Amino acid sequence: MQLFVTPASPWVRRVVISIIELGLQDKVTMIQTRWPHNWATQTIAFDPDFARATPVGRIPALSVKGGIRLADSMTICEYLNAEHGKYRLLPREGAKRWALLSRISIAHGILEAQISRRAELLRTVNRSADFIEKMKDRGLRCFAALDEEVEAFGDDPELAQITIAAACGFADFRYAQDDWRAAAPRLARWYETFSQRPSMLSTQPAETPQ
Amino acid sequence: MQLFVTPASPWVRRVVISIIELGLQDKVTMIQTRWPHNWATQTIAFDPDFARATPVGRIPALSVKGGIRLADSMTICEYLNAEHGKYRLLPREGAKRWALLSRISIAHGILEAQISRRAELLRTVNRSADFIEKMKDRGLRCFAALDEEVEAFGDDPELAQITIAAACGFADFRYAQDDWRAAAPRLARWYETFSQRPSMLSTQPAETPQ
Repeated sequence: MQLFVTPASPWVRRVVISIIELGLQDKVTMIQTRWPHNWATQTIAFDPDFARATPVGRIPALSVKGGIRLADSMTICEYLNAEHGKYRLLPREGAKRWALLSRISIAHGILEAQISRRAELLRTVNRSADFIEKMKDRGLRCFAALDEEVEAFGDDPELAQITIAAACGFADFRYAQDDWRAAAPRLARWYETFSQRPSMLSTQPAETPQ
Repeated sequence: MQLFVTPASPWVRRVVISIIELGLQDKVTMIQTRWPHNWATQTIAFDPDFARATPVGRIPALSVKGGIRLADSMTICEYLNAEHGKYRLLPREGAKRWALLSRISIAHGILEAQISRRAELLRTVNRSADFIEKMKDRGLRCFAALDEEVEAFGDDPELAQITIAAACGFADFRYAQDDWRAAAPRLARWYETFSQRPSMLSTQPAETPQ
């Protein structure tokens, strides 16, 4: 399997953490991509392999021999969890599946707000301070909602925790001034421990290669 | 179950089409929401019921008695399909699941581009023509990729077809000048038939109430 990645993306990070937690490193070849800063407002030129892997033109993208192409992180995580992970990160069905997907859908709200805000900050013209504020509000609202769920987290890592941890890590990487810990103090205590896992330590965000 | 909706959203439409195709209309109460045009760049005031249903602050949101809250259309469709639909729109597992999720992830690329572009067009200041063009490019690239998949579509409606049809319908509603049919002529022929289903005719897009 080929996975197209960058070191800055929290969407990529949740996939890579999942790969490590499932022990699938040997099955996945990581292909670094480069993104000029004008990705935020321009259609940039895509490497032919990447263009074949995903018409969306975003990372992560997974390409599997035999023709499966998956163009978003949730679908990639579901595929790895089901086909190679014995459903250890997300149950195939039942109440626990919906509890986890409910948390994941809130964490997606954070990740989308984080990346939309990043794209706005990369605009050299027509940057909207109001839009940035709206994305900040959404993120903090979602962190506060997840703070009420911490006691229900399982002992073993699962896809909701992994996704939330990627959001916490990206908040620290790009938006430390927001202080998500003030909005979510119980989540902050949980993250203190979770962030020390080898899968977290080996995937810390770094700048996207241009 | 309570579903928070607006008549303009293609994300909402795919959920409502799924509800109709699964025959679940009696189980779901639709709650119309109102969105002032400054939703694009401002945190707007949320109705308390809606705020309780989703911290993300976006539609659709599903609230189920007993505490399940689902904050995005894919998760809602998965829940309805699994818990009330006997997996008729998306298989629980196996090769067909990944084939459909692969198409769905491309269709999501279109829907996200359509809504990001709409939000940009609603900006009264700091509107970026380049961003609008980037979103247009992404949408047409994804329509062209889906055009190559039409022959593999099943005879019965499934979640990939429903999601793609919502994208086609929104393109006609907001961006008719793009001419997605030129980029995807086989998809256009498929849509001519699919768009005549009762579930499609009864969910045609209309302006969001302000």
